[in-house]
Amino acid sequence: MTKFKHEKSQKSGKSGAQKGARPFKPRSQPDEGPIWLFGTHAVKAALVNKRRKAIRLLCTLNARDSLLKDGIPIPFEPEDTMPRDIDREIGAGHVHQGIAMLTDRVVQPRLDQILTSSAHASESGPRRIVFLDQVTDPHNVGAIMRSAAAFGARAIVQTSRNGVPETGTLAKTACGAFEVLPLVSVTNLSRALEEVADAGFLRIGLAGEGTQTPQDIDTSRDLAIVLGAEGKGLRAKTMDTCDHLMRLPMPGLERLEAMHGIDSLNVSNAAAVTLYALSANLG
Amino acid sequence: MTKFKHEKSQKSGKSGAQKGARPFKPRSQPDEGPIWLFGTHAVKAALVNKRRKAIRLLCTLNARDSLLKDGIPIPFEPEDTMPRDIDREIGAGHVHQGIAMLTDRVVQPRLDQILTSSAHASESGPRRIVFLDQVTDPHNVGAIMRSAAAFGARAIVQTSRNGVPETGTLAKTACGAFEVLPLVSVTNLSRALEEVADAGFLRIGLAGEGTQTPQDIDTSRDLAIVLGAEGKGLRAKTMDTCDHLMRLPMPGLERLEAMHGIDSLNVSNAAAVTLYALSANLG
Repeated sequence: MTKFKHEKSQKSGKSGAQKGARPFKPRSQPDEGPIWLFGTHAVKAALVNKRRKAIRLLCTLNARDSLLKDGIPIPFEPEDTMPRDIDREIGAGHVHQGIAMLTDRVVQPRLDQILTSSAHASESGPRRIVFLDQVTDPHNVGAIMRSAAAFGARAIVQTSRNGVPETGTLAKTACGAFEVLPLVSVTNLSRALEEVADAGFLRIGLAGEGTQTPQDIDTSRDLAIVLGAEGKGLRAKTMDTCDHLMRLPMPGLERLEAMHGIDSLNVSNAAAVTLYALSANLG
Repeated sequence: MTKFKHEKSQKSGKSGAQKGARPFKPRSQPDEGPIWLFGTHAVKAALVNKRRKAIRLLCTLNARDSLLKDGIPIPFEPEDTMPRDIDREIGAGHVHQGIAMLTDRVVQPRLDQILTSSAHASESGPRRIVFLDQVTDPHNVGAIMRSAAAFGARAIVQTSRNGVPETGTLAKTACGAFEVLPLVSVTNLSRALEEVADAGFLRIGLAGEGTQTPQDIDTSRDLAIVLGAEGKGLRAKTMDTCDHLMRLPMPGLERLEAMHGIDSLNVSNAAAVTLYALSANLG
């Protein structure tokens, strides 16, 4: 049955390309069924992840050597391929570095499960959870996952409707972090923020109009860090649900703003700076 | 003559596409002659920049309205276009948002000029200059320019050989910052680092093996912040030229490293965090 499902998924992809979809645009993957992961780091991390099951594994000779050299467990003999064979399977325009793995999606935990499982891990310091308010670019979400994992956050929370699905592009950009950090989807972000507040979290929304700076925030608390999409920022309702609105002090900001009113930082850079700035150990 | 030059540049692009270049790959631009900028923020910022001269300006009706609404000076009547006309001019695969501008490249200052011109601007606090050691991805360099401008850095310095040229992709990712922040190219990075040391700068190299953290650095000093490419990091010679090697404290790092030894942060995220962490006003 599983076999049937992914064969179907490949086929539908191919016919999509035949219908004249613009070839430079990565083929979109359906929201269900197995997906192709690609790229050295993303696939290595997925092979190490015990929750993942490889269905197919395509490797160039070089990529196979790299797996062996790093002692990555290989579940079965990979299919020897040329780079263009991988292009054909996963769609053109992906930087796959000679390796791709077809796998079922990760079953993500619910927010309450994250809260429960991390509640007794207080030895590793106060908790951080990143909430994304309609950030829909998989490159940004992937980079945020990578930074969030590095700074020890417990999960990323997004809305099912205006969030990102698990795709190869997301996992590639997350550079392995997708395998260690839960990506939780909720129906309603404000309600999820109420849920973490009930669990003792302080909710910090990043917004240009914020009056607090990182030094005003009690970093010994569990923190929900809430980020909006570039340009749009946080929705009014999301802002209302935050305990504090915080801005990052940026001495060069005026120079940029006076000129054309853009957001000063890319959202993934803003996320990384915020995670660092609100680290508990900076005192 | 100028007219002739850019007509030639267009033509060579078209014939490149006809020769069967993979259409999803942005057309590479030659290192001299005018270039196409594209994207709302990048073009608006370029139109405001008095050092820029527009040669051609392609706008959809919507993009034109957006220029007028923001009071952006328009040097001559833009050519009304459909989005696909812009694709044809600048090459497919660019997110141009209905606006593109053909313009000469910016003449960038030399490092000594940056040092001289910023020497007496001490009222705006100690200076920051970002040095890039072989960072070659224009998306990363663009995002770094954006953060560096926001945090008030005076320039980005890279090597001519393994740096990035001025391209539409770079300017687009820099989101306007390309117009306000000098991108200086030098022949030899270590020599440039000696030059800024002579001008009183402390040279801080970001490296996983660093023993210092941001709190150990005297942020009242002028700082050269030195960053290497992802994976490769700083070259040995660059490291030797730094006064301190610094790492960012990352509590979740072990989780990622134990798994597959990747760099913990994307280089542009690392740059943003470092610029913030070494801000003079954090005390």
